[in-house]
Amino acid sequence: MFKKKDMYTVAVVGATGAVGNEMVSILDERDFPVSELKAYASERSIGKKIDYKGSEIPVNGLTESAFNEVDIALFSAGSDSSRQWAPVAASNGCVVIDNSSAWRMDPEVPLIVPEVNYEEILKHKGIISNPNCSTIQMVVPLKAIYDEVGIERIVVSTYQSVSGSGQKGVNELSEQVTDLLNLRDVNAGVYPHQIAFNCLPHIDEFLESGYTKEEMKMVNETKRILGDDSIGITATAVRVPVFMCHSESVNIETKSRISANEVRALLSSCAGVTVFDAPERDVYPMAIDASGRDDIYVGRIREDDSVDNGINMWIVADNLRKGAALNAVQIAEHLIDLT
Amino acid sequence: MFKKKDMYTVAVVGATGAVGNEMVSILDERDFPVSELKAYASERSIGKKIDYKGSEIPVNGLTESAFNEVDIALFSAGSDSSRQWAPVAASNGCVVIDNSSAWRMDPEVPLIVPEVNYEEILKHKGIISNPNCSTIQMVVPLKAIYDEVGIERIVVSTYQSVSGSGQKGVNELSEQVTDLLNLRDVNAGVYPHQIAFNCLPHIDEFLESGYTKEEMKMVNETKRILGDDSIGITATAVRVPVFMCHSESVNIETKSRISANEVRALLSSCAGVTVFDAPERDVYPMAIDASGRDDIYVGRIREDDSVDNGINMWIVADNLRKGAALNAVQIAEHLIDLT
Repeated sequence: MFKKKDMYTVAVVGATGAVGNEMVSILDERDFPVSELKAYASERSIGKKIDYKGSEIPVNGLTESAFNEVDIALFSAGSDSSRQWAPVAASNGCVVIDNSSAWRMDPEVPLIVPEVNYEEILKHKGIISNPNCSTIQMVVPLKAIYDEVGIERIVVSTYQSVSGSGQKGVNELSEQVTDLLNLRDVNAGVYPHQIAFNCLPHIDEFLESGYTKEEMKMVNETKRILGDDSIGITATAVRVPVFMCHSESVNIETKSRISANEVRALLSSCAGVTVFDAPERDVYPMAIDASGRDDIYVGRIREDDSVDNGINMWIVADNLRKGAALNAVQIAEHLIDLT
Repeated sequence: MFKKKDMYTVAVVGATGAVGNEMVSILDERDFPVSELKAYASERSIGKKIDYKGSEIPVNGLTESAFNEVDIALFSAGSDSSRQWAPVAASNGCVVIDNSSAWRMDPEVPLIVPEVNYEEILKHKGIISNPNCSTIQMVVPLKAIYDEVGIERIVVSTYQSVSGSGQKGVNELSEQVTDLLNLRDVNAGVYPHQIAFNCLPHIDEFLESGYTKEEMKMVNETKRILGDDSIGITATAVRVPVFMCHSESVNIETKSRISANEVRALLSSCAGVTVFDAPERDVYPMAIDASGRDDIYVGRIREDDSVDNGINMWIVADNLRKGAALNAVQIAEHLIDLT
């Protein structure tokens, strides 16, 4: 049972990964009330140290007793690890906020984007799920529109950065670019094909339907977070040679009419969203600007007259921050506030 | 008046540009019946030489007499130059095939993609327009679907390479990447912002509606080429850090139902299209594969159940070849065949 305290023992599981690393930074940046930070990771990282508020925290492997006296565990160590260890942590009375896809569609596990459905947090039974990065950045602005005029259908195409594959994705793009500039052959390991100067319409595994798991996460998680299965959603997820931040081209068919100006006004007062939309001055959201920032940037807002009630927009956010680590820490903050 | 001959005097206007250069190569590759090749360009290229079938062709500036005795002029020197010089060439009895946007929406000027509407070629009055690169690669597969089941609406998001901005776009991406890898500041000149490791939702100028000219070219030219103003089309055009080839995520709402397998079969027998669609073996169209190729590659074909009759696909083509120079030369070939 999670109890209100002044300070909390927090564990970060997957602490040496790209998201885990960001979780540790964000706990620090936001002055999260941490009495003790514990860092866990897979075997190959045991013995490493991570830096937190100027002190070195040793990285340990997970054991049955790892979560004794831990209040909140932020997991970002992959689905297999989450499936194995999140129930162990939860049964120790710890609240797990899990960044993997393991529990996202489990009806017993709340799937939370605080700006959208923070009140669902208290329904947790020890595990709270953090949605997919591409879903989080889309669903915050969508929620404002959904509440105002309803949503009939969404067609989204993504432009996702290599940091979504972790540090190894970042390294692969960097190495391939360097190899190409030096006229050397390119090696592909993380991705099935060269990502440098290329676009791969392929993120996560392919399903029999021809869709990827990533595309179906956007479809299913968006419906679950908005609490409306009747919304039509289709997604095409594409990896682009960008290091940080995901961009999304989102076409929305609303139930009743809303003008581009009304959408701009609506999103301007939406928590966690910054409208960045002045094309006449070449102002629109871009990956290089959103990197390291907390907000979701929305621009290129315009009416689409190919349907009765259409809106196009371009959404960019830091996939490691709002798309993952920041959202997880915000869930923890709301958990404390609500308790 | 264009007359059938064994060989033709051909002029390439804008011969030193990225598309002009490709036009010269393609005339050679396809053994176009050229008796004499004349090369024209803007002032700063006068005196340069271009290579054609092993001989050096001097590059001259345009004059009133430049088109005397020229049968076919392939223009790719920008809209201003086309507006000024295409009528001069046409009044000299030369047929102009123009790659700029200057005449594309002029009802007196046929807008041609040979696989779609070659029979319109003979309606020309001296000028034939080559569509926008992003439009050409989309409209060929769309035409097959349109003829089979009708099209209600299209939502397209593009992933366009820097070669669409000519050699200067290629140079800018290359220089920026090199600067970043060497920890030097990046200079943006061709694009308003850094394109290296970034996505710019901005191609061509912005209109008051919030759409770019590029986006509206895709909307208006597609309707004109398919000869159907009732199709709903909306586009988001995005520049990505890729050197060659444009990729497109295209969502199609058809008038009656068609399965993904039927689309695959239909496109497999479609001239100019190669279906490249075996996700279980990581086979899908990619910019790095389509570069230097003539065909339009289509993959990720899958049913979209967010509407009654939806299909998603991913289309990739070499924007300098089928998107520009090859299509222009194919128009010239059909002009000869039809005469």
